[in-house]
Amino acid sequence: MQHVVSVKRKALAANDEAAAELRQQFQSAGSLVVNLISSPGSGKTTLLEATIKSLDGRLTAAVLEGDVATERDADRIRALGVPAHQILTGGACHLDARQVIGALGKTQLLPADLLFIENVGNLICPTTYDLGEDFKVAVLSTTEGDDKPFKYPAIFARAEVTVITKIDLLPYVPFDMNAVREHLAVLNPLGTIFEVASTTGEGVDAWVQYLGERLEKKRAKAS
Amino acid sequence: MQHVVSVKRKALAANDEAAAELRQQFQSAGSLVVNLISSPGSGKTTLLEATIKSLDGRLTAAVLEGDVATERDADRIRALGVPAHQILTGGACHLDARQVIGALGKTQLLPADLLFIENVGNLICPTTYDLGEDFKVAVLSTTEGDDKPFKYPAIFARAEVTVITKIDLLPYVPFDMNAVREHLAVLNPLGTIFEVASTTGEGVDAWVQYLGERLEKKRAKAS
Repeated sequence: MQHVVSVKRKALAANDEAAAELRQQFQSAGSLVVNLISSPGSGKTTLLEATIKSLDGRLTAAVLEGDVATERDADRIRALGVPAHQILTGGACHLDARQVIGALGKTQLLPADLLFIENVGNLICPTTYDLGEDFKVAVLSTTEGDDKPFKYPAIFARAEVTVITKIDLLPYVPFDMNAVREHLAVLNPLGTIFEVASTTGEGVDAWVQYLGERLEKKRAKAS
Repeated sequence: MQHVVSVKRKALAANDEAAAELRQQFQSAGSLVVNLISSPGSGKTTLLEATIKSLDGRLTAAVLEGDVATERDADRIRALGVPAHQILTGGACHLDARQVIGALGKTQLLPADLLFIENVGNLICPTTYDLGEDFKVAVLSTTEGDDKPFKYPAIFARAEVTVITKIDLLPYVPFDMNAVREHLAVLNPLGTIFEVASTTGEGVDAWVQYLGERLEKKRAKAS
């Protein structure tokens, strides 16, 4: 076990080095980079579709998709006219910074105002892997149950933003929004929460406005 | 990377050895052991609650819960009068056979007719870890989307049983049941599928009957 732990520590240290390289690259490109993390089926891709529609070309976007198998998610993004590249991890449960460097090297995703990295559907493994992003976004759907922030505290404590999706299904599922807000306030007092229904568009504009403001702040700080 | 792979291979080989020990222990106890694997929030604990209610004491049951944090799931099971023990993995994304051996050593969960092992909520990591179970069950909720079997093929190909949960929400979500059945038929031609709504009880009896039949078969084979 000791051996496994030390190998994991080395892998994380190597990842941090690669992430620093990415952060510099994103800084030069003037891109705001968001690392989206959630369970499978929480609606990350659907949120990105709604985000792209709401942006309506005011900002340019690009998407890196992480999955263990299939190009489905990248296909969905490309159908909206936004460049997307799928990284297939071949079984691995998270993206790492080296994979992102490799993908950016062989694509024309940058420059873009916003680069979304949709991580592999997994609430645990992607948490500790820095991809050079400006911030992590935890996506939580109302259908998963309101106990998830406490059951998977690491990601909800680290993500600067939590997007609660599928709020259109609230009438049909047991999900106590106030309880979730209270849990998140304990785990992550400085975090920002958005509530959206990607399929109806409800709440998407506020999230998109936040992205625009974060991009402006990043560029103002850089100049 | 080569080093990481070889460490993982060694960890899996050690796990297989421990799993063989567990399998013998389960055989001696005459227990049918089921390893439940799904995304976070697919409804594994709620399915177990419905299963225990449907069993109505006709068979004895016990539950091992795997989570990264909190005793919540075990508390829910104990509230129904069924013995449960929570294994906290401290961040690890799956249970391993050594943890199960440790938990059984310090609890009185066995003997029981049925032992349910609810794995950590994760569609990827638990797939390759044998826990000495009779079979794996993949749990897929209708709210996660019908593309999950193709996006996470390893678990759906290996699980002898897939339980599709939250069918009471079908009117409100885009989920093509026929497409999922076709996908599963490709990935796992010999697999068995159940459709349930744990909160209303719909479909639970068929799943419970199947468990009883599997237990009988196992015992008939052993005698």
